[in-house]
Amino acid sequence: MEQTKRKIIIDCDPGHDDAIAILLAAGSPNIDLRAITTVAGNAEVEKTAINALKVCEIAGLKDIPVARGAAGPLTRKRETAPSIHGESGMEGPSLPIPRQTLVKDHAVDVIIEELLSSKGDITLVPVGPLTNIALAMRKEPLIIPKIKEIVLMGGGMSGNWTPAAEFNIFVDPEAANIVFESGVPITMAGLELTHQAVTTPEIIEQIQAISNPVSEFVVELLQYFSKTYKDEFGFSGAPIHDACAVAYCIDPTVFTTKKLRVDIETKGEFTSGMTVIDINGVTGREPNVNVAMELDKEKFWNMLINALKHYSQAI
Amino acid sequence: MEQTKRKIIIDCDPGHDDAIAILLAAGSPNIDLRAITTVAGNAEVEKTAINALKVCEIAGLKDIPVARGAAGPLTRKRETAPSIHGESGMEGPSLPIPRQTLVKDHAVDVIIEELLSSKGDITLVPVGPLTNIALAMRKEPLIIPKIKEIVLMGGGMSGNWTPAAEFNIFVDPEAANIVFESGVPITMAGLELTHQAVTTPEIIEQIQAISNPVSEFVVELLQYFSKTYKDEFGFSGAPIHDACAVAYCIDPTVFTTKKLRVDIETKGEFTSGMTVIDINGVTGREPNVNVAMELDKEKFWNMLINALKHYSQAI
Amino acid sequence: MEQTKRKIIIDCDPGHDDAIAILLAAGSPNIDLRAITTVAGNAEVEKTAINALKVCEIAGLKDIPVARGAAGPLTRKRETAPSIHGESGMEGPSLPIPRQTLVKDHAVDVIIEELLSSKGDITLVPVGPLTNIALAMRKEPLIIPKIKEIVLMGGGMSGNWTPAAEFNIFVDPEAANIVFESGVPITMAGLELTHQAVTTPEIIEQIQAISNPVSEFVVELLQYFSKTYKDEFGFSGAPIHDACAVAYCIDPTVFTTKKLRVDIETKGEFTSGMTVIDINGVTGREPNVNVAMELDKEKFWNMLINALKHYSQAI
Amino acid sequence: MEQTKRKIIIDCDPGHDDAIAILLAAGSPNIDLRAITTVAGNAEVEKTAINALKVCEIAGLKDIPVARGAAGPLTRKRETAPSIHGESGMEGPSLPIPRQTLVKDHAVDVIIEELLSSKGDITLVPVGPLTNIALAMRKEPLIIPKIKEIVLMGGGMSGNWTPAAEFNIFVDPEAANIVFESGVPITMAGLELTHQAVTTPEIIEQIQAISNPVSEFVVELLQYFSKTYKDEFGFSGAPIHDACAVAYCIDPTVFTTKKLRVDIETKGEFTSGMTVIDINGVTGREPNVNVAMELDKEKFWNMLINALKHYSQAI
Repeated sequence: MEQTKRKIIIDCDPGHDDAIAILLAAGSPNIDLRAITTVAGNAEVEKTAINALKVCEIAGLKDIPVARGAAGPLTRKRETAPSIHGESGMEGPSLPIPRQTLVKDHAVDVIIEELLSSKGDITLVPVGPLTNIALAMRKEPLIIPKIKEIVLMGGGMSGNWTPAAEFNIFVDPEAANIVFESGVPITMAGLELTHQAVTTPEIIEQIQAISNPVSEFVVELLQYFSKTYKDEFGFSGAPIHDACAVAYCIDPTVFTTKKLRVDIETKGEFTSGMTVIDINGVTGREPNVNVAMELDKEKFWNMLINALKHYSQAI
Repeated sequence: MEQTKRKIIIDCDPGHDDAIAILLAAGSPNIDLRAITTVAGNAEVEKTAINALKVCEIAGLKDIPVARGAAGPLTRKRETAPSIHGESGMEGPSLPIPRQTLVKDHAVDVIIEELLSSKGDITLVPVGPLTNIALAMRKEPLIIPKIKEIVLMGGGMSGNWTPAAEFNIFVDPEAANIVFESGVPITMAGLELTHQAVTTPEIIEQIQAISNPVSEFVVELLQYFSKTYKDEFGFSGAPIHDACAVAYCIDPTVFTTKKLRVDIETKGEFTSGMTVIDINGVTGREPNVNVAMELDKEKFWNMLINALKHYSQAI
Repeated sequence: MEQTKRKIIIDCDPGHDDAIAILLAAGSPNIDLRAITTVAGNAEVEKTAINALKVCEIAGLKDIPVARGAAGPLTRKRETAPSIHGESGMEGPSLPIPRQTLVKDHAVDVIIEELLSSKGDITLVPVGPLTNIALAMRKEPLIIPKIKEIVLMGGGMSGNWTPAAEFNIFVDPEAANIVFESGVPITMAGLELTHQAVTTPEIIEQIQAISNPVSEFVVELLQYFSKTYKDEFGFSGAPIHDACAVAYCIDPTVFTTKKLRVDIETKGEFTSGMTVIDINGVTGREPNVNVAMELDKEKFWNMLINALKHYSQAI
Repeated sequence: MEQTKRKIIIDCDPGHDDAIAILLAAGSPNIDLRAITTVAGNAEVEKTAINALKVCEIAGLKDIPVARGAAGPLTRKRETAPSIHGESGMEGPSLPIPRQTLVKDHAVDVIIEELLSSKGDITLVPVGPLTNIALAMRKEPLIIPKIKEIVLMGGGMSGNWTPAAEFNIFVDPEAANIVFESGVPITMAGLELTHQAVTTPEIIEQIQAISNPVSEFVVELLQYFSKTYKDEFGFSGAPIHDACAVAYCIDPTVFTTKKLRVDIETKGEFTSGMTVIDINGVTGREPNVNVAMELDKEKFWNMLINALKHYSQAI
């Protein structure tokens, strides 16, 4: 039934796992993907915007508006992650020339317009730095009460880009702080959660077996991404961080969550961009974030495989 | 053989677990406890100094100089922990009036004089805020190359006093930073280690069975301390934090350690006093701290029980 | 001749002196006032936007687009100045109901569109907090090389809102930092300059003598503003801060300037929002701001009086 | 009469103007110079301590204890001023080998002992970084109520070492903060005051005319110091900063002062070490410092000349 579809906007910086997040959303029948907005993060926004178009091309998605957003963080210098995602931000697979073009509007305005014209039923799914979301909130504060929920990939008890900070939050802590302080209901899929979504040879085999152009693209993404994760972090496979946030929108029971106080460190010398999670409640402050604790792996991988199978008919 | 004894100075803020650390050191034949210096921390320094004297009184220690040190942190306002250690800093057991008095010299000068007149064979064992050690280093930098090692209780991957910071480091991060940047070899027993040293009913039973005045005192300490740890942190027993640092001086094989980069956060809004541990080596910076990872519990409890048994003859 | 007109956008938060700045610009034949954009500052943006419309109504300006902008600073909490400008932000004079309405576009987009469609000949004249300008630069970095110059009112060697910071910069230091670091040529009229533009009884008399609705409105503004400046700061008259920036656009010889290094303090405990001016060149760093040092008072007041006289015919 | 002598301890980092401060104090009959304590500042403490001894040697001072103190700031890296004071810290004059030696005690302990054994009638005159004073306050808080007054050279409305900070406060802002927050009455001779004490050819001529070994030494100091001040700061002569603080102890009417709120900035990116002076009372906070505003130049130079003449008999 149409009415049960969950409306989401994915704000992303593709990015290998961002690409999979888009494919998971677009391949899931109960998701209404309203727009894809892009931001500087894994790579420059010129690259992440075009990468998003390429993912749409591969997946045969023609009607989802793709918009370009912020070229760098709110107040800091831009930092990208070529060691993980390669120069293009989505290195590895051979990529098509997209036929679709970017919408004329800026990502921030796409977000504002979608929200203002909505019935308050849109969930934002930011899986890159939170710059676009923060800019939208600052430009048009009226959107804040219209956001149903923010389901984001970012943060964690400990970091990956620094010992204390995860990349997405590290890149733009001021933006993250605006979002976390906004009062909007937030579900946060941090590293403790997304590191439970590491691919195994069995998973890759299952994806390979689907054998359609989209699944083949995903396999190529995972091959590159597994290699950089192995080289840089010593992982056995690739953690599909961003897809976790989408998975929660498809079926919230895929996470076990805990309502906790989370503050964004913006002033630290060694901790800038840390999501300070009061796991033991020592601050006595009001919990403000639904923190994802455990991933139902079986459910998660099934979702992904089903979504990828969906493309066998769709294209 | 005399020559195998390890010379240590315990710098502490008794404190329930500080008291046990002193008793463990003084009851261990291979430790030469040169001095006990005290600092504001769990309670005001007037209290922690007198508490150290009371521990000596109970244990029959007459020849160990006890000195009073800094009344508060290097640059910050004082913070104490009455919720954990009670008003006196060592609430619970009935305590004697000590016959011994404090030495005339300030703790900082005791530390400086001991080190300057040594052959470079003294280990400092700070188990409270690092104010005295930092002041000593700042007052007389010549002591720095004379310190054999600093084996400290403090810090951790996550905190207990705030979500990010452990109490000892939180109270005086600037002092901690001076110590961690000093170039002296440091072994750090942080919360991940000391939370492996939680008492169980079996352990308390074994201590009770020793049945001398010192073991009885320890049982009373543990009863109070277990209760506050249960009430405040939901622990099943009391973690004997400070004794872990002494245990390592008695026998370093009681810890598994890892050489890692550790930085002290002094500027954070939510992370001040955090020991930022580069567990995955993402900073690429030179490791500077020997971080205790795993406690050989059997060895640890045996050490403590043997030390406490020692007082059956000694007094 | 049309071609000699200087194109400017006034970004403001009226504000008594903002109102005079608008009137000075609109009454000066060699200024082409392209747009008035408004921002939270002296009062909330809902008020400053409507105040701008009221100034246009009084002055009979019908063709200048007026846009509403940011409701608060980039990353900080909003701070307004009711002690100086009253609850409405432009307290004192009786004000008309404006017939003109705000343009549909957001101030940030008006600025971006004007600049992108220009030949690089538009000067921005921000006389409030720099939030709109910073947001525009962050949303569309392509505007940066298109800005001819930024002539701003803000900052100074010492402050007025705190001992170190002037109100406009204090309110949004992060925005100021983005603007000062943008590489755009900046002329800064700080407090040392604008405190030379204090009204005297003679000046007020001259304005009164013009005797048209606009000059009468200005007299009423100055009466209120002089009173709050006397009460709050002990001034003998009202400093017409914001009009100074416009005066420089009309005729740059109204200022003596010096090219100096200026940095924006964003981290200070007592100095946040300070414009740190390297007046003696001790940093050895490249000068980045044309700092206004001396005001040619005669020229300045003549400009203002001439502009106000202009409205005798115009309306 | 003995009883009218003002007891002072000069804590200094000679330093050309420090040397003159010592000579002014020791040559003034109503000053009882109890001790000279030294600190790292203009040069390393090994140098400033020996320089103090050399000044005593030249002046024939045999009974004033000279002590060595802190080798660097409380929490920061050491910074010295060889561009102003030369490599030795007192470059220029030919200097004798001192016969007197440093006292065994550390400067911090000399300060503590003098104060504790006093009747609360000792004034501290720090004319270098405030490290020794802060360390003494932290080591023995009981001295705080025993200090009659602190008359210091440091700070100002604007800086000399950075645009915002004067050298003495810049070098150790944390120490300055401890001192300024201590509650002890403080008189501060900042740059606005000491830049009124710039030597002129006439002054130098008058000093030259005294023609004793001490005045000749002073002339040599001033020749070197005038040159570096001319080269580095474009001054016409040398400002005898440190002597101003001593002058105030000799006769407080040499300054006009104003009680103002002064805060020490320790966190700023561009303003660290600034003395934030609330000259217009905008903070509404309680004044805590007696800020020197105007120097009675005639009185000042007469004091110095009289003190130097004193050495004609004394040696």
